[in-house]
Amino acid sequence: MEGLLIYSGGLDSTTLLYHYKDSINLALSFDYGSKHNEKELFYAKWHTKQLKIPHLIKELNFLKNFGSSLLKKDMEIPEGHYTDKSMKSTVVPFRNGIMLAIAVGLAEDKKMDYVYIANHAGDHEIYPDCRPKFIRYIGLAATYGTYQKVKIFAPYEDKNKREIALIGKALGVDYAKTWSCYKGLTYHCGRCGTCLERKRALKGFDETKYSQI
Amino acid sequence: MEGLLIYSGGLDSTTLLYHYKDSINLALSFDYGSKHNEKELFYAKWHTKQLKIPHLIKELNFLKNFGSSLLKKDMEIPEGHYTDKSMKSTVVPFRNGIMLAIAVGLAEDKKMDYVYIANHAGDHEIYPDCRPKFIRYIGLAATYGTYQKVKIFAPYEDKNKREIALIGKALGVDYAKTWSCYKGLTYHCGRCGTCLERKRALKGFDETKYSQI
Repeated sequence: MEGLLIYSGGLDSTTLLYHYKDSINLALSFDYGSKHNEKELFYAKWHTKQLKIPHLIKELNFLKNFGSSLLKKDMEIPEGHYTDKSMKSTVVPFRNGIMLAIAVGLAEDKKMDYVYIANHAGDHEIYPDCRPKFIRYIGLAATYGTYQKVKIFAPYEDKNKREIALIGKALGVDYAKTWSCYKGLTYHCGRCGTCLERKRALKGFDETKYSQI
Repeated sequence: MEGLLIYSGGLDSTTLLYHYKDSINLALSFDYGSKHNEKELFYAKWHTKQLKIPHLIKELNFLKNFGSSLLKKDMEIPEGHYTDKSMKSTVVPFRNGIMLAIAVGLAEDKKMDYVYIANHAGDHEIYPDCRPKFIRYIGLAATYGTYQKVKIFAPYEDKNKREIALIGKALGVDYAKTWSCYKGLTYHCGRCGTCLERKRALKGFDETKYSQI
């Protein structure tokens, strides 16, 4: 199961990093110009350094022009739940498809067998490229499209963020050192879709430790 | 069937550009640092200008580090047929997977329904990400992974280069204004895999017009 992880520095992929640290040989992050990229990458660097796992950051300039409130300064991040229609503006077109394809190419180049990704059930409603059917087909494309027969492994596909946080708690993950908020300001805003989901996920956790949300 | 074409400036995708020019709204080329990129892109610009089809070139810096003789100055382009084992060094890991994923994202962003690609039967032997099974699964990933339900259209999948050239001849495509040779020198070398295939494809065509091979 050795391979590389697509690693944002958020709650889900940080949990996955600790969960499978013994078989993850490389963490791959992307800087695609989102408002919260800098915050996420700060923590991504921190955790990979702690675990002594090599960390690569690839810049995706071409993504910066896509129309998404996650990227565009003149578009506001909507507040409310993931299920709200307004959240659709946060979709970055086929982002997981693009990141997975690059990760599969890198796995083929480095002769690794697996690409790990932390998509989860909470994402399915609004992000089509987080859903199980998408993951299944791009996984088959990866296997048939490489000599290495690269496979995609998405162990949190059917879990919600709360279940993921409970796995992380048991592993001792320090969630104060992860970033979720789409706005990317000094503190988590507490009102955007990902903040609301994060709050629910970390409810009852050590309040001091997670005070930033 | 309106959409965008992944366009290299080579024989196959130039034929496809002319073949489906009425439904191709955008041609998308990639500069990924290959030895023949500059030559290909020169002709890609020329044909899109002729047909008045908008043309975008995206730079893929992260691909430049992959181990392939198409990219690395210290690796020689092998000479001989596509079926020769030595040709494997020309594989750029999951190149079509990466290009298709970016094209699908762009189609979703611009609300286009189709991504056209000119993979063909001659590529199947050596390039896993040109084979029908790969194309089928990445096509399903594109459809399930986008709101637009983007589809991938690969009309030359079962045709060889000769059959493609005959389509182009009937359409009046000027093949002297296309580039194939992997070496990217002043003239086609005539000895690498793609040159040998090109020669077979254009056999008997107007010799003056195609003298550069």
